[in-house]
Amino acid sequence: MNAGFIQTHPKFGRIKENVEDAAKKIRALDADLVVLPELFSTGYQFRSKEEARKLSEGVDGYAAGRLSEAAKEKNIHIVAGFAEKAGKRAYNSSMLIGPRGVIGVYRKAHLFWDEKKIFSRGDTDFKVYKAGGVKVGMMICFDWIFPEVSRTLALQGAQIICQPSNLVLPYCPQAMITRSLENRVFSITANRVGSEERVRGKRLRFIGTSQIVAPDGSVLYRAAGDGVEAAAMEINPEEALNKDITPVNNLFKDRRRDLFVL
Amino acid sequence: MNAGFIQTHPKFGRIKENVEDAAKKIRALDADLVVLPELFSTGYQFRSKEEARKLSEGVDGYAAGRLSEAAKEKNIHIVAGFAEKAGKRAYNSSMLIGPRGVIGVYRKAHLFWDEKKIFSRGDTDFKVYKAGGVKVGMMICFDWIFPEVSRTLALQGAQIICQPSNLVLPYCPQAMITRSLENRVFSITANRVGSEERVRGKRLRFIGTSQIVAPDGSVLYRAAGDGVEAAAMEINPEEALNKDITPVNNLFKDRRRDLFVL
Repeated sequence: MNAGFIQTHPKFGRIKENVEDAAKKIRALDADLVVLPELFSTGYQFRSKEEARKLSEGVDGYAAGRLSEAAKEKNIHIVAGFAEKAGKRAYNSSMLIGPRGVIGVYRKAHLFWDEKKIFSRGDTDFKVYKAGGVKVGMMICFDWIFPEVSRTLALQGAQIICQPSNLVLPYCPQAMITRSLENRVFSITANRVGSEERVRGKRLRFIGTSQIVAPDGSVLYRAAGDGVEAAAMEINPEEALNKDITPVNNLFKDRRRDLFVL
Repeated sequence: MNAGFIQTHPKFGRIKENVEDAAKKIRALDADLVVLPELFSTGYQFRSKEEARKLSEGVDGYAAGRLSEAAKEKNIHIVAGFAEKAGKRAYNSSMLIGPRGVIGVYRKAHLFWDEKKIFSRGDTDFKVYKAGGVKVGMMICFDWIFPEVSRTLALQGAQIICQPSNLVLPYCPQAMITRSLENRVFSITANRVGSEERVRGKRLRFIGTSQIVAPDGSVLYRAAGDGVEAAAMEINPEEALNKDITPVNNLFKDRRRDLFVL
């Protein structure tokens, strides 16, 4: 299969424009699985809970609808970060969309900095979904720093970990190599580019460098630090089913759970 | 305090020579805490359990004795990997030595490849010890690939994770940056150099690149891939007590244990 990402540059608050732009790029990319950045449809820096609530949508919203059309048309799967409306709350969420529409939603468990003022913290499990014949898991941006997140997904069988992101710090791309290695899974980080300064004194520059990493830790593709870009690589997701790293070492079976205190 | 490592080139089976060499280098290094490689006193590639038993020692052995003398003389702490005799068993162990002798022993939990034929698997907890005023934890080489190991040590308060190693694969030095970052701890990896081909057809070349990493993931020092070397850096271990990475994000308190399935 081909799996990849679209590194976008969202315009804050312009949902239709951002969604149409992403849908167009999805149609142009030869990929069975495409990951979009965190909050791809709205942009990142909300000024208040009210603003987030106003710009958030349900899984029956514009973004989900248009991406579902693209997924149906191309018979593919899409993972996209979005601001999710749920009653009076807004979550920083990610949805998995297939040819028949939305399959699952993950609500970001570990909110970073001012996100805590804007979003409710996630209340969904780290769940693994079938996308075509392949098991995928979702995590969002800052979740990377907690090794338990990718571990939980991998132990449940995730072959590909999809990570919509709005990274500003430089550590994650390198750390995701470790996440792939320690779990023997593919990981796809879709980051955005550009900058935002919607909150006074908080200029955020997003670092791009979206990437696709193989279970052996090799970086199959890494995007530039700036510039909009789409990329997909041919991968064999079955590689992620094999947790043997020597003839006598299995990454999962060797774990000394009897000695861990977590 | 000053903390560092000695990157050695052990000669297989020549315990006295290897220990004297290390003790001399310890005496020459300005460090309050020094980490030596895995199996520093014996070399790595044992041909059989019998050979390992023959060359292994207790904490009353030659290596422990001579290192204790050096630790007493310099009023420092030493972490050293050694083949530990315990009854009829041999463990791939690490000992923490202070001015008053051996403080604690860790027996490698995750044995790599042929080590499974040679050593008994570790039966000690991942325990944290006081070394002077500082809490240190020990793990050995391949333990790095299991994020639960450094996590367990950090959650118990380890400020410095000491990792005696005999690395042959290239991934660990980069991954230890992630281990330091995700736990906000210092890590010291002491690796060896040179090669061994004591088992027919198994030529092992050890990759050196011993390193000292700060809680923010910065590499304070990384040794060359070959060549014997000793290095120490001034560090402030109190930095590892602070798990805040933003004014509202604490790496330990933010962990969503309610969602992890480990």
